Amino acid sequence: MTIDDLRARHPDHWNRATAIRVLALDAVKAANSGHSGMPMGMADVATVLFEKHLKFDASAPDWADRDRFILSAGHGSMLLYALMYLTGYADISLEEIRNFRQLGARTAGHPEFGHAKGIETTTGPLGQGIANSVGFAIAEESLRARYGKKVVDHHTYVIAGDGCLMEGVSQEAIGLAGKQKLGKLIVLWDDNGITIDGKVSISDVTDQMARFEASGWSVFSCDGHDPEAIDEAIRQAKQSPLPSMIACKTHIAIGSAAQDTAKGHGALTDDQLIADTRKAYDWPHAPFEIPADLLAEWRSIGNRGAVERQEWEARFATLSDSRQREFTRQMTGEVPKKLSAAIKRFKQTATEEAKKVATRKSSEMVLGVINDVLPETIGGSADLTGSNNTLTADLGAFDEDNRKGRHVSYGIREHGMAAAMNGMALHGGVLPYGGTFLVFSDYARPAMRLSALMGQRVVYVMTHDSIGLGEDGPTHQPVEHVASLRAMPGMTVFRPADTVETAEAWELAVQADGPSTLALTRQGLPLVRTEHKTKNLTAQGAYVLAEAQGKRMAILLASGSEVHVALEARRILENEGIGVRVVSMPSWELFAQQDEAYRKRVLPAGPVRVVVEAGVRQGWDQWLCGERGRWNKAGFVGMQGFGASAPAGDLFQHFGITPEAVAQQVRDLL
Amino acid sequence: MTIDDLRARHPDHWNRATAIRVLALDAVKAANSGHSGMPMGMADVATVLFEKHLKFDASAPDWADRDRFILSAGHGSMLLYALMYLTGYADISLEEIRNFRQLGARTAGHPEFGHAKGIETTTGPLGQGIANSVGFAIAEESLRARYGKKVVDHHTYVIAGDGCLMEGVSQEAIGLAGKQKLGKLIVLWDDNGITIDGKVSISDVTDQMARFEASGWSVFSCDGHDPEAIDEAIRQAKQSPLPSMIACKTHIAIGSAAQDTAKGHGALTDDQLIADTRKAYDWPHAPFEIPADLLAEWRSIGNRGAVERQEWEARFATLSDSRQREFTRQMTGEVPKKLSAAIKRFKQTATEEAKKVATRKSSEMVLGVINDVLPETIGGSADLTGSNNTLTADLGAFDEDNRKGRHVSYGIREHGMAAAMNGMALHGGVLPYGGTFLVFSDYARPAMRLSALMGQRVVYVMTHDSIGLGEDGPTHQPVEHVASLRAMPGMTVFRPADTVETAEAWELAVQADGPSTLALTRQGLPLVRTEHKTKNLTAQGAYVLAEAQGKRMAILLASGSEVHVALEARRILENEGIGVRVVSMPSWELFAQQDEAYRKRVLPAGPVRVVVEAGVRQGWDQWLCGERGRWNKAGFVGMQGFGASAPAGDLFQHFGITPEAVAQQVRDLL
Repeated sequence: MTIDDLRARHPDHWNRATAIRVLALDAVKAANSGHSGMPMGMADVATVLFEKHLKFDASAPDWADRDRFILSAGHGSMLLYALMYLTGYADISLEEIRNFRQLGARTAGHPEFGHAKGIETTTGPLGQGIANSVGFAIAEESLRARYGKKVVDHHTYVIAGDGCLMEGVSQEAIGLAGKQKLGKLIVLWDDNGITIDGKVSISDVTDQMARFEASGWSVFSCDGHDPEAIDEAIRQAKQSPLPSMIACKTHIAIGSAAQDTAKGHGALTDDQLIADTRKAYDWPHAPFEIPADLLAEWRSIGNRGAVERQEWEARFATLSDSRQREFTRQMTGEVPKKLSAAIKRFKQTATEEAKKVATRKSSEMVLGVINDVLPETIGGSADLTGSNNTLTADLGAFDEDNRKGRHVSYGIREHGMAAAMNGMALHGGVLPYGGTFLVFSDYARPAMRLSALMGQRVVYVMTHDSIGLGEDGPTHQPVEHVASLRAMPGMTVFRPADTVETAEAWELAVQADGPSTLALTRQGLPLVRTEHKTKNLTAQGAYVLAEAQGKRMAILLASGSEVHVALEARRILENEGIGVRVVSMPSWELFAQQDEAYRKRVLPAGPVRVVVEAGVRQGWDQWLCGERGRWNKAGFVGMQGFGASAPAGDLFQHFGITPEAVAQQVRDLL
Repeated sequence: MTIDDLRARHPDHWNRATAIRVLALDAVKAANSGHSGMPMGMADVATVLFEKHLKFDASAPDWADRDRFILSAGHGSMLLYALMYLTGYADISLEEIRNFRQLGARTAGHPEFGHAKGIETTTGPLGQGIANSVGFAIAEESLRARYGKKVVDHHTYVIAGDGCLMEGVSQEAIGLAGKQKLGKLIVLWDDNGITIDGKVSISDVTDQMARFEASGWSVFSCDGHDPEAIDEAIRQAKQSPLPSMIACKTHIAIGSAAQDTAKGHGALTDDQLIADTRKAYDWPHAPFEIPADLLAEWRSIGNRGAVERQEWEARFATLSDSRQREFTRQMTGEVPKKLSAAIKRFKQTATEEAKKVATRKSSEMVLGVINDVLPETIGGSADLTGSNNTLTADLGAFDEDNRKGRHVSYGIREHGMAAAMNGMALHGGVLPYGGTFLVFSDYARPAMRLSALMGQRVVYVMTHDSIGLGEDGPTHQPVEHVASLRAMPGMTVFRPADTVETAEAWELAVQADGPSTLALTRQGLPLVRTEHKTKNLTAQGAYVLAEAQGKRMAILLASGSEVHVALEARRILENEGIGVRVVSMPSWELFAQQDEAYRKRVLPAGPVRVVVEAGVRQGWDQWLCGERGRWNKAGFVGMQGFGASAPAGDLFQHFGITPEAVAQQVRDLL
């Protein structure tokens, strides 16, 4: 069909969709950067979705039971911003559209969660949105099971491009969604056959419909410029009990000289091309000008869900007060006051029992408390449940037959798990945690970065956190991972030393404004917090665990499984008359946030400082030579490179991470 | 079929395969850790492959034209070690089998490249082997196109498990291989229906054959315990012009009480279970004992390819001397001597022209020289060719119609690209480089880690290396990536300041013993190396770029796009009478390798030190407060957190990364 045909057959639809197209053209032209072609190509699909299917009320972007709309192809951000402006989201004014991609604007180059209400997730790194959406859909299923469909009953719609579908994480998402029969998840694939480098066929021959079908999805297709066909496809997808993918055959940069080309993917800024395109669209209006009657049509689409929302509010009001409070508490992520007392009791018992426990097991024990107090937790593991110790009694498996279950078998899909957890956290009502081996945080890292960038409360349970895992060898032994996660802004890394610190770390993680990584051991560790303190000492990031008996000549800093090594080194040195303080440092980030007076109390100038941590040194100089330290009085006992395959005890000896080595470093530096 | 039936129908085969099974049982029992079930389940497939199909000569593991065998399911390492011992690879003795997973043994928990000749790649992190294999197959096609099938004509066989196929990277590999019609790639899927957490069906319902077929593969299936069926399936797969996947239906831990269970996946160490299994196998021999006649059978399998190898050597000898030398040079990775002169000329011209150039463009210019001198380079990009500047004139596209092409359109598959490049480097004869945005190194990181662990010469061309990329915003702006790659052992990170340093970095990267990451700018940079030096200054990691004119009161350290900022700050300060040295530091790793005398010359004690780098501070304290520095005389100008979406110039101002800010830091510290 030609543009003229499209316009002639559905003139009202054409105008509505073209409002999106020209706003994209105008904003990209003004910014002199961005992506014009995708919003132009997908405007028809988005218009039909928003006009006929998406349950939303632009005046109430926080409405809990709204459908979620995820723009996985985040580079097409102007599609989203145009829709938000046109339908009347308060946060996206025409001024914001004009300031697309400028400093301080809500209309960032890619959609940024938190910049404007209505942006459900941050996208741009390809594949993330579609993988988030699986988490959104899981959260919806879980809440529906808990609160009933009168309160929770909505869809998750995703627009994904070829880039999203080529990224491996999409396969993890597709596989998980297919297995879980997430019937309320609908992916609209922008099937335009074009990527940045040219035709999709230069890099892929995949039959995407067959691929999705192979993983248990319903598949549909439509002409992505025919509003009736789009409507019908979405209608059918909503009927399916399986997740659905609709292949929307579209023309990127439709109606421009760059249509169906890689050039059309990028920023169309040529004046003549833009003028010609407007002419082809029969769009006589000035840049950024949307005729009042057309804007009114769009605003009424934005208002379409208001009645439904009010009905929902009325239904919600019929719940008991306590149910309402609990729903609201879970959606806002508040933690019940009783958690604090429960953690204190747990710590006291742990201190009294003083068992030697691997911190992954300590984590399971704490989770027994947390999962009891917080019914909104949904745990899971990337096929290492018994190793990551994420499954506590009575959680039950979350699956297609048991939506009240609270433990997800994510399969061997670390990346998909992390991205799904982002979706759950963003959806609200769910507090996700998930486990894998720390070394495989590398697989999950792109999604972990987005947890951090979005400030989402996701807890990464990363076990087997050093050479202490032993025989599996260097491929499985993280040496640089704690450092590389500490390098990530917004990620709080905890490496607790024993059961008590593990409990404290968990208490902080479930109340944090962002993601946490718990680095936990495979191997058993003695209790180092032998004196019960009600205060959460881990909250300070680092604290004096053992004070020097004699004159304080050295400070040992350690984390996790090396804290007891430091204590043993202290014993050796004290026996020689060398006064040694041991500082346990479970979290750099939290210590850095303390005021200088506290930091100075913990790390005063003067003594020799030696770090012991079974990882690389990178970053430790901040606390060794920095923070009142001195270069020629600083030592490090840890890893210089990759690990090896052998029993853990042999490895600690082999790599010289022993109390004796620490003691010797101190002696050498004194 | 029962065990008895299997044995009765193919008694000789049964014994050969069972030799693998019992060695796996015995070694895992001795180590008290490892994975018994996979070698037991896949022993029949592996036996048929080695006996009837794999072109190899155990006495010549470096034979260039051998078939490559990749154990993607690396946890089943005892399958590989048993095969290597039985067929007579010199590096894997019975003693090594007995020492499975012990310190210093070549038989690490997961196969480690370099531990023994015959281990083609390091596997264990799931999905990596199958993704490597695509690179092996590309390398083979490329070499065959260059040298003819008399010299190069071999298959790549992969054993992959459910874990490999669930990891997203496998989809990237499958998609790339399917598009490239890599007909000599054959994947044997261990279809046992079991993962660590239980049945595959708890996390996946994917029809794998349909999935592979959707991406352009031939698919076959067989009973993975029936040697005739296995043989026939492999035979058919070899006929296909497409890559082939054979679903081998197997029983994990076959013949044991743990058969077909998740328990069977792990270490079977129970004495009774092992005794019962040996009985079921009708295997009366002592642990680690292989009867001499059976061993002889296996050794003759190991020797089967000797004739073919000798024939190959005879054919190879018919090549001209120069062709032979060139083939050998490329396979061993030696770089022609003329490269050095070519780079020097390039540097001289760049110095004379003194153009303002983005280092991604500088990289393209250098590649013009390198690709000319080194016909073995194969470049590529994850769908950002024009942005990563990886395609130089005359390379041509490598694809199914042009195996002489030298640029791969990897698609939006950063992880698959990196893993494929590992495969190419491991295969030999190819020097791979590939590009994406630096921020998406996160996607590729698990494979980059394996480049580092294996010491493979892979060059990562990572452009758009800071907020300098501008409007795409925080999702696309690396701030922690340079730090996190510096944290990785064995990875050399270069962040060159201009065209000259870019040339020097490339010269080092193509001759390195391991992987390199080039962090390159999107934005134009002035030339800072305005005086031509034939010496490669980047080889020292850091060097004095500009000396203080007055008394040296401060040292500015900078990398990449901030070196010219440091030079400008120096100008401001020198005008105020403050003597300032500027140290350009393109590579921490190389500077750390210099002797102390050199490091001291570059970073003497005394002056104030300020770093300027548009990334996070992590690790910089090593050079600021460490290395003769002082905490209260150290400053940092860089990023404190994530970036923002705006034009680059606005961002550098907004985040205070300016000459004025650097100068002010120096004044404050003096």
